[in-house]
Amino acid sequence: MDTHLVTFQPQNRTVKVRDGESLLRAAMEAGVHINASCGGEGVCGKCRVIIEAGEVEGGLSERLKPEDREKGYRLACRASVIGDVTVRVPVESVVDASVLNIPPTPRKTARVKTFDLDELKEKGLFIPPMEKVYLTLPEPNAQDHLPDVTRLVSFLTLKNHEHRLGVEFPVIRKLPDILRREGFQVTATLARPVREDGQTVIINVQPGDTTSENYAVAVDIGTTTVYVQLIDLVSGNVLAEEADFNGQISYGEDVISRIMFAEKGDGLIRLHDVVTETINKLIRKNVKRAGIDPDGISSVTLAGNTTMTQLFLQVDPRYIRRSPYVPAASIYPPIKAKDLDLDLPDHVTALVYPQVSSYVGGDIVAGVMGSGLYRTEELTLFMDIGTNAEIVVGNRDWLACAACSAGPAFEGGGIEFGMRAAKGAIEDFSIDPVTFEPMNLTIGNVRPKGICGSGLINIVAALFEAGVVNPNGKYERNLPTDRVREREGIWEYVLVRQADTQIDRDIVLTEIDIENLIRAKGAIYSGCQTLLEEVGLSMQDLDRIYLAGGFGSYVDLARAMVIGLLPEMDADKITYIGNASLMGARMSALTNRIRRDVVEVTRKMTNFELSETPSYMDHYVASLFLPHTDLELFPRLKARLDLRRSAGR
Amino acid sequence: MDTHLVTFQPQNRTVKVRDGESLLRAAMEAGVHINASCGGEGVCGKCRVIIEAGEVEGGLSERLKPEDREKGYRLACRASVIGDVTVRVPVESVVDASVLNIPPTPRKTARVKTFDLDELKEKGLFIPPMEKVYLTLPEPNAQDHLPDVTRLVSFLTLKNHEHRLGVEFPVIRKLPDILRREGFQVTATLARPVREDGQTVIINVQPGDTTSENYAVAVDIGTTTVYVQLIDLVSGNVLAEEADFNGQISYGEDVISRIMFAEKGDGLIRLHDVVTETINKLIRKNVKRAGIDPDGISSVTLAGNTTMTQLFLQVDPRYIRRSPYVPAASIYPPIKAKDLDLDLPDHVTALVYPQVSSYVGGDIVAGVMGSGLYRTEELTLFMDIGTNAEIVVGNRDWLACAACSAGPAFEGGGIEFGMRAAKGAIEDFSIDPVTFEPMNLTIGNVRPKGICGSGLINIVAALFEAGVVNPNGKYERNLPTDRVREREGIWEYVLVRQADTQIDRDIVLTEIDIENLIRAKGAIYSGCQTLLEEVGLSMQDLDRIYLAGGFGSYVDLARAMVIGLLPEMDADKITYIGNASLMGARMSALTNRIRRDVVEVTRKMTNFELSETPSYMDHYVASLFLPHTDLELFPRLKARLDLRRSAGR
Repeated sequence: MDTHLVTFQPQNRTVKVRDGESLLRAAMEAGVHINASCGGEGVCGKCRVIIEAGEVEGGLSERLKPEDREKGYRLACRASVIGDVTVRVPVESVVDASVLNIPPTPRKTARVKTFDLDELKEKGLFIPPMEKVYLTLPEPNAQDHLPDVTRLVSFLTLKNHEHRLGVEFPVIRKLPDILRREGFQVTATLARPVREDGQTVIINVQPGDTTSENYAVAVDIGTTTVYVQLIDLVSGNVLAEEADFNGQISYGEDVISRIMFAEKGDGLIRLHDVVTETINKLIRKNVKRAGIDPDGISSVTLAGNTTMTQLFLQVDPRYIRRSPYVPAASIYPPIKAKDLDLDLPDHVTALVYPQVSSYVGGDIVAGVMGSGLYRTEELTLFMDIGTNAEIVVGNRDWLACAACSAGPAFEGGGIEFGMRAAKGAIEDFSIDPVTFEPMNLTIGNVRPKGICGSGLINIVAALFEAGVVNPNGKYERNLPTDRVREREGIWEYVLVRQADTQIDRDIVLTEIDIENLIRAKGAIYSGCQTLLEEVGLSMQDLDRIYLAGGFGSYVDLARAMVIGLLPEMDADKITYIGNASLMGARMSALTNRIRRDVVEVTRKMTNFELSETPSYMDHYVASLFLPHTDLELFPRLKARLDLRRSAGR
Repeated sequence: MDTHLVTFQPQNRTVKVRDGESLLRAAMEAGVHINASCGGEGVCGKCRVIIEAGEVEGGLSERLKPEDREKGYRLACRASVIGDVTVRVPVESVVDASVLNIPPTPRKTARVKTFDLDELKEKGLFIPPMEKVYLTLPEPNAQDHLPDVTRLVSFLTLKNHEHRLGVEFPVIRKLPDILRREGFQVTATLARPVREDGQTVIINVQPGDTTSENYAVAVDIGTTTVYVQLIDLVSGNVLAEEADFNGQISYGEDVISRIMFAEKGDGLIRLHDVVTETINKLIRKNVKRAGIDPDGISSVTLAGNTTMTQLFLQVDPRYIRRSPYVPAASIYPPIKAKDLDLDLPDHVTALVYPQVSSYVGGDIVAGVMGSGLYRTEELTLFMDIGTNAEIVVGNRDWLACAACSAGPAFEGGGIEFGMRAAKGAIEDFSIDPVTFEPMNLTIGNVRPKGICGSGLINIVAALFEAGVVNPNGKYERNLPTDRVREREGIWEYVLVRQADTQIDRDIVLTEIDIENLIRAKGAIYSGCQTLLEEVGLSMQDLDRIYLAGGFGSYVDLARAMVIGLLPEMDADKITYIGNASLMGARMSALTNRIRRDVVEVTRKMTNFELSETPSYMDHYVASLFLPHTDLELFPRLKARLDLRRSAGR
């Protein structure tokens, strides 16, 4: 895609943006503040800029006077970049010169790491647990009456150097007919054992040579969203991927409400049924999209948190939410997909990721396997911030994990105007350090409806850096702006005034909202600190961070460090790995080795119940500041704050 | 039960009989001939005897003149022995003095060997594959959040020295609830591995201590009859046993007709369904009779011939009856009983006896295991003469087996008046060597309807020894009796005249019937000879014979030797073991060791397709005589025949 250079004056900052990007977003990217209330819909008319060189498309609003249009004025939010351009931010909306000298906090999104199939192949790990072998068996005759199964097994033992071959009963049922359909030429599907001294089992036979049709299904059962991939086991490639809301959503938004529903009447069966329906629908879509014969599917691998796993498996989850929080099982045996009501051929075996504890589940274990954390030398912090936050620290030698009761702030929960990351959610924000006027960017460039999780982080970080919010998370009481105000005893900042919203109310951020965010980030940060301290290490020792889950993809790393959610470190050491759970499910479909390793890794993952770890409460209380009681933990932020302070504010 | 001595005069022979036995049967037992046509119903009035000392009950028929009754005449067939008694067979129905001197061929029924539980216990083999263990687990608490399954497995590993424990998925589903029902006190059912290095698997958990309720079901799936035993795995005893006709009977009498039915439409499913119905009905009856909770059943072991096994398992049997006669499988994996539609708890595992070939099936393998043949030092011949005849020779070092196409003669098939061993079937027979008048005994002491298998052997043996039938199986043409006659070109002996039958026709034995019997016994005898010869041995080397199957229980060993069905040997070396297949099924329910041994034994059982073994045809042709072309193989019979010949006939 084409990119263009946009230069902003008088800041004299240049950014590279994609063709068609709005000037407002380009300014945000450049760290240039432009007042903008309406999120980019063009109704507030505040984001006026002058095009000095080059051209833009659009931005000609009725809110601009004809003579201003003549002078090159455009609304930044409605003007699209179509070539290199120089833009002047008008004097009336720029801060004084001293403020111009403050370097903006650099915007940093995480480097994205996707599934590395080539690495898997290079390391010789691309050996799927399900292998297809084409065989031409000798036909029986008057001197050779070997039973069909014995014939197949003996031949495989001889030619393929198999030992201790087992045969599943349904194979025996179909073998006599299938052997004779193409003159004793058949393709056998072999399920490799987990342990090297285990038994290879023949799980399917097909007439003729079908070795090119060997597929796996990988499933991530999220509390909110279910992802299903169809994988070609010959090439290792993903043939199709589909996602949809987990059908259980109408029975409760979070795991606790799902468990409560499961405890009533046939609630457990109902929840099993609806999530199975979701998975089945997605499998059918994938099969149709890829145009494959579903009889070629050999395995299905599934990962989900402990509650999602137990609900899908129809294992009563009631003890997950009751002290002492005990899950039914850690490691599940291979289960026939049909016994789980999955619409897959009878021979398909379901491999379910193991759980560490009630709140560190198979999705996290899958993430540890899929991300490669379990075999890295680097001391790594793995964070999955979703409905709940789970953290893992360690490397190939040791692993410690914990679930943090972060609360739903990062999903927009517990925030007065919080919402999911959907159209109309404020996702990015900047504040004029002199006038304290906001610059709001929304998902979809429409008038704001609320604030999503990444928006919340950006807003609080900007308010804090601008000195509007102090390290205790309280608003400065004496600022020369009516945007910071007290209403019914609660202090708040007005992000969008009523007229510019979709909801006919002022959109505000209250001190209670900030407190909730601080509690959430504090729980996570102190959780990491506690885990590290338990093994004699500290945040400074971290070599890398893996951010997993939908949340991580949008979060601005620099701002997450400003509020103290992430420890301060070079942005290129932070990797966004996306849906790590699905990555792990795919990984275990492609490499048999992982099925043995995962047992060891799961055992190795020392789980800390933070509420029962004495040092946790101290760390937690110390983290209930912006960014932290101990500012020395955030030296770069400290330097910037010092610079600002010396610059006059 | 009381026994009494009955002495017959003028033969001066005494036998011991059970209280209530008829005088006619006592005479047969003593080798004393009394004319008797009507099978024991009392209608022919021929079996008149005089009570000389002691008393009998009954026998006072209208067919006796009042003055004869006064003299002590009774009908032997209606007179019951109630004390020691001396009986004179009247002059008019006794042969002349010279004949009296011929010693009767001694009647010999086989020693019966039943399941030897004590031996199993003494040898330390009473270790069932399914073991129940009662456990008091530590309860989880704030310092111990082990998942339920991990808790169970760890505890078993620690306290019970288990290694590599597996858990079946349904156990995981029920474990959380069951653990908490009686304060973490549970009974686990462990399925022991076949191989010592295999994995023990937890297949069930029950609340509290249920170790005293551990049961197994053993099933013999016969082509005609299905037997089901309910076994107490704690004591090893049989709690109940039930039998019924195989529901498949209405779809064909023999395996070939069943296979033909299975090949049409949904015939296979139908045959699976009806035999499963039969088994389920018998299981329910056993459970009811024993008054047990079926949830305590841990395993079901099944044995049947190859066709019965495949039909029950719903494995297409069409290639069993087509050259080169290939069964689907030899060894079947453990199968969940519910997957076979058995009405047993979900956790129950079905263990199916392996097959050697299309016509030496799991029933024979079970017989080899159940009888102990596989671990004896004695060179043993095992014969199961049922719908088909299967033979095994060998000992603990080697085993050879074959199926003999004996035809259904021993089941009454292919014999003009042949019938199954049911009420009205002539089961025993003697002939007056002077008058050639018969003495018929029927099952149920009713007028004859036909001839059963054991009756056929007894009749032909008696006719042969009396010189009525020659070694070629042909009737002597010039005997002074109208009972041997030619009708429509076929020679026959009239066993019962029309008036004394239930069927309003003369019951006869034709030369064609005798030929069929000779072919049948010849096929079996020559089969044994061939097997032995292939390993460099002969009939004379045999140390023991095991007779299995319903047929063996009624056959008179001496007469079976007379016709050349059995080799001549001491009767106490011949053991009747009854339903060896059921015995084997029970054995594998009681001793896990046998599950490993059976794989080895099955591999060791060298199967001979007799039709493809060159020497077989020579042996077969040589055996198509009474008793055999080579009379030296039957020295005792030869001596008796010589004695008779010298006695005048």
